Amino acid sequence: MTETRAQAERARQAYFKLQTMDRTALLHDIADALRSHADAIFAANAKDLAAAKDTLSRPLYKRLILDEPKLRDVIDGIRQIAAMDDPVGRIIETTELDEGLILKKVKTPIGVIAAIFESRPDVVPQIAALALRSGNAVLLKGGREAAHTNFALGKVIQDALSRHDISDAVQLVSSREEVAELLGMDDLISMVVPRGSNEMVRSIQERTKIPVLGHADGVCHVFIDEHADLGKAVRIAIDSKTAAPSACNAVETLLIHRNFPQKDKLLDELKGSGVELHIESDFGKEFLDLILSVRMVENLDEAIEHIRRYGSSHTDSIVTENAANAERFLNEVDSAGVYWNASTHFADGFRYGLGAEVGISTNRTHARGPVGVDGLMIYKYQLIGNGHIAATYKGQNARPFTHRRV
Amino acid sequence: MTETRAQAERARQAYFKLQTMDRTALLHDIADALRSHADAIFAANAKDLAAAKDTLSRPLYKRLILDEPKLRDVIDGIRQIAAMDDPVGRIIETTELDEGLILKKVKTPIGVIAAIFESRPDVVPQIAALALRSGNAVLLKGGREAAHTNFALGKVIQDALSRHDISDAVQLVSSREEVAELLGMDDLISMVVPRGSNEMVRSIQERTKIPVLGHADGVCHVFIDEHADLGKAVRIAIDSKTAAPSACNAVETLLIHRNFPQKDKLLDELKGSGVELHIESDFGKEFLDLILSVRMVENLDEAIEHIRRYGSSHTDSIVTENAANAERFLNEVDSAGVYWNASTHFADGFRYGLGAEVGISTNRTHARGPVGVDGLMIYKYQLIGNGHIAATYKGQNARPFTHRRV
Repeated sequence: MTETRAQAERARQAYFKLQTMDRTALLHDIADALRSHADAIFAANAKDLAAAKDTLSRPLYKRLILDEPKLRDVIDGIRQIAAMDDPVGRIIETTELDEGLILKKVKTPIGVIAAIFESRPDVVPQIAALALRSGNAVLLKGGREAAHTNFALGKVIQDALSRHDISDAVQLVSSREEVAELLGMDDLISMVVPRGSNEMVRSIQERTKIPVLGHADGVCHVFIDEHADLGKAVRIAIDSKTAAPSACNAVETLLIHRNFPQKDKLLDELKGSGVELHIESDFGKEFLDLILSVRMVENLDEAIEHIRRYGSSHTDSIVTENAANAERFLNEVDSAGVYWNASTHFADGFRYGLGAEVGISTNRTHARGPVGVDGLMIYKYQLIGNGHIAATYKGQNARPFTHRRV
Repeated sequence: MTETRAQAERARQAYFKLQTMDRTALLHDIADALRSHADAIFAANAKDLAAAKDTLSRPLYKRLILDEPKLRDVIDGIRQIAAMDDPVGRIIETTELDEGLILKKVKTPIGVIAAIFESRPDVVPQIAALALRSGNAVLLKGGREAAHTNFALGKVIQDALSRHDISDAVQLVSSREEVAELLGMDDLISMVVPRGSNEMVRSIQERTKIPVLGHADGVCHVFIDEHADLGKAVRIAIDSKTAAPSACNAVETLLIHRNFPQKDKLLDELKGSGVELHIESDFGKEFLDLILSVRMVENLDEAIEHIRRYGSSHTDSIVTENAANAERFLNEVDSAGVYWNASTHFADGFRYGLGAEVGISTNRTHARGPVGVDGLMIYKYQLIGNGHIAATYKGQNARPFTHRRV
């Protein structure tokens, strides 16, 4: 057995054990440990940064930084997650099938999750916390560029977990060839969470039968309706692009109703904010930069049609004072996030109040949009009877079910 | 463009249109149409049965029959589904992110679903009804053995739908080479539902990137605890096997606590019911027949361990009068169904009160166990602001979020 497979086996055992433990205490201990070992973590991060200075692109380099403000956010996030009610075992619904035969649908974890990520070492404590809160075990595979920081974070978390004799619940995977191996272990790993470039996510989706939670493209739209307020249009268009141009929730195409009276003013304001405009071209392109494709549309229908055709079902926003148009947009655009008079940049787990996120999903099954604890859970059915058998409910004298929601 | 791809494109357009329609009326019309065309359906079924008489195995032949009782169940199921509240657009939760900035998590359909099935033509109206109730479009690909019946059912449904100008929402796929083609259209199809043999399900899982909702193996267990009541043990063990030996919810292995005093009596009763016992062998095997593997275990831990190792996470039951043992079993066995003093044969969408089922899932994401309307749905986030931008909540004078559940 390879070391990676042995790790996955241990993670599976830890997953079972985790179900019988106080998971809230684990989270508080990890938050405390990260705080008290902050210096060691920063020192490790300094090593990675020094090595990366000349080799990494600016956005990746920025994501590699783990400084006091970022660590504080991470620790605050873990405390927030620790303060949540434990979701494991929560009853979703109860149905009486017959007298004395009760069916409960109950929240459960998914199992062993593998997270594969580049740069951003803050992913380690965030995903660890979300996984533990939801009762899952997790294998974390980071990039070489963050190796020292990831190792330091992993050690702090492992030490905290080992005080509860559950150190295998969160493991760093660091042997060679491990990504391909992780992706092949569909008997042990129940979900893969990639965090990184589109190419990386797509390549993972191609190579595994395990469900992948993530998004490849983030092609978001803002539609300025005929009845838009100019001030809101300007604020939202600029914020949606400039707040983080390389993030997946940045707007890539601005759709403007042909009858919107102040369209020239709007475009001038965008240019004034340093945004390069590509008029009537590059639809569906994710620029990851201060560039915006702009298209004039005849009406709301054409805007919706455009988004269906070119969008990636991530996040799309309408700016309008017309409630009927907004309502149609919110109902008929079927992206993970549909917004009315708000910046696409709100598509984020922290901003949604999830404490943290494992990522943003553009899948159409299991979980969509920013994914927190809830997206790491599934359910099982518990049926409690008193000797009930199916034959009673079959054939000529079949007893009817009550199917009463209780 | 091939005909199958053209069908999928039309299904996608129908899916969009379906969102703006009264889906309850569609369901009632389909139920009425099935009733008034019953004779044509039975005649078509007679053709399939005549052709299959000498070629099909007995279980498949039985599943091919669509007679008055089966059609009545189908129509009753559709009426039950029509009577449900429309789930599309139902608000799951609402969070205030800040004053005037409201986030709603709203139920939505998944999109275009492809159902691939063998024999059992009753799948056509059942899956059509579940898909329409949940606002999805569906492509149905049945086996050659049921071609006449499927065609007759498809025509009745299409005629009903075309009266609402939405006939593309449910389509039979009948060109050649269509399964491989369906499985490759991950840009148009969002979920595949296979209904058939283990081999068929597994082969589909191997060949597509589209999420597959289904189960390959149904290896269910009944554990007779030391503190079991003999009467219940006998009833449940026999029913779990004999009610439908070839169904996926049939028990395959009986685990008996070594200290259960009446174990010989229990085994005698099973043999008396025509069940062949394989003592201490064939663990994890799905017999699909009146055969049962039997193992003596030392204690509850060994039973749980056995199920984790050999089970398929389908449905497992404990028979005991000891509440603490039952509680542990229900919590620590992490199958889709965990039962206490009830037959594994209850694992079924009708019995659970779902009206019908698209199948039983042993997946660990999206949906588990018998899957009805709920398993064909996902959600989107609607964010309603008034010109809100993300920059307000960033940096030195960052405004805090309220994150208040409303």
